[in-house]
Amino acid sequence: MLADTMEQFFQYDERDFGRRRTLDEVTGKPESMAFPRAPQYVRTKDFFRTAPVMKQSVETLFELNKRYEVFIVSAATEFPQSLFEKHQWLGEHFPFITWQQMVFCGLKTIVEADIMIDDHFKNLDPFKGYTILFSQPHNLLQPDNRHKRVHGWSDIADILL
Amino acid sequence: MLADTMEQFFQYDERDFGRRRTLDEVTGKPESMAFPRAPQYVRTKDFFRTAPVMKQSVETLFELNKRYEVFIVSAATEFPQSLFEKHQWLGEHFPFITWQQMVFCGLKTIVEADIMIDDHFKNLDPFKGYTILFSQPHNLLQPDNRHKRVHGWSDIADILL
Repeated sequence: MLADTMEQFFQYDERDFGRRRTLDEVTGKPESMAFPRAPQYVRTKDFFRTAPVMKQSVETLFELNKRYEVFIVSAATEFPQSLFEKHQWLGEHFPFITWQQMVFCGLKTIVEADIMIDDHFKNLDPFKGYTILFSQPHNLLQPDNRHKRVHGWSDIADILL
Repeated sequence: MLADTMEQFFQYDERDFGRRRTLDEVTGKPESMAFPRAPQYVRTKDFFRTAPVMKQSVETLFELNKRYEVFIVSAATEFPQSLFEKHQWLGEHFPFITWQQMVFCGLKTIVEADIMIDDHFKNLDPFKGYTILFSQPHNLLQPDNRHKRVHGWSDIADILL
């Protein structure tokens, strides 16, 4: 939840279709349904490299990184070109995150930790620790009774800092 | 332990220094001590992409993959160019391994599983499950009383299949 991939989808989609989709149009839909060309965008060079940074993520993660053992776990192996791009992107925007803290995987079930912040139920549901659901249009209609829903990094700061 | 990185070091080193180092010369030494130019080799394009495949690893992993939930966990984020190369390499030599099964990380302590096969004590020592030490020149002089030492993939087949 460091990269604002959703905003990147909005922008690529607007470029292709001439108008920005409304939040209502994409709410509750997986990205591949909300944005017809999403499957192409995620395979496009620089899609991940140029993704906007999520608001307040830099300062919040900077503080979290002092108090917690932080790992950045990113689903990346489905799109191999994204591996290098995500590594470079992290280096540019989060230079305090070291290579030791990066994990690029397919399934996040392999990861063991105490707290997981994610926007997908498929990642949070099997996780054994404390789970924080990062609100995104695609997960807005799903019940969040099993996970703590947050609406941005300032909420995460309130909980964890 | 799918890529024979040690053999790749031997070959790059022989190309640069005119003779193949003996096993005695490299035994007990970390790769960066055994091969003076190792730190450059691991940053060289195609070093990982063209690494030889470990003997009997393909057929053994093929069978393991039928009976176990297999993840390939590779330390790769220290050398970002290796990410894509290792992904491509796996796709070429182990096409039955899916992107869901790949993990490219820095520290392997983040991984949770029941069995770990590795050649480094730093990865095996903190692991909570059953640990298999894959013999390599660099670990030959270290005591293996905490881990099951094997000398190749046929030993692993004997234990796990």
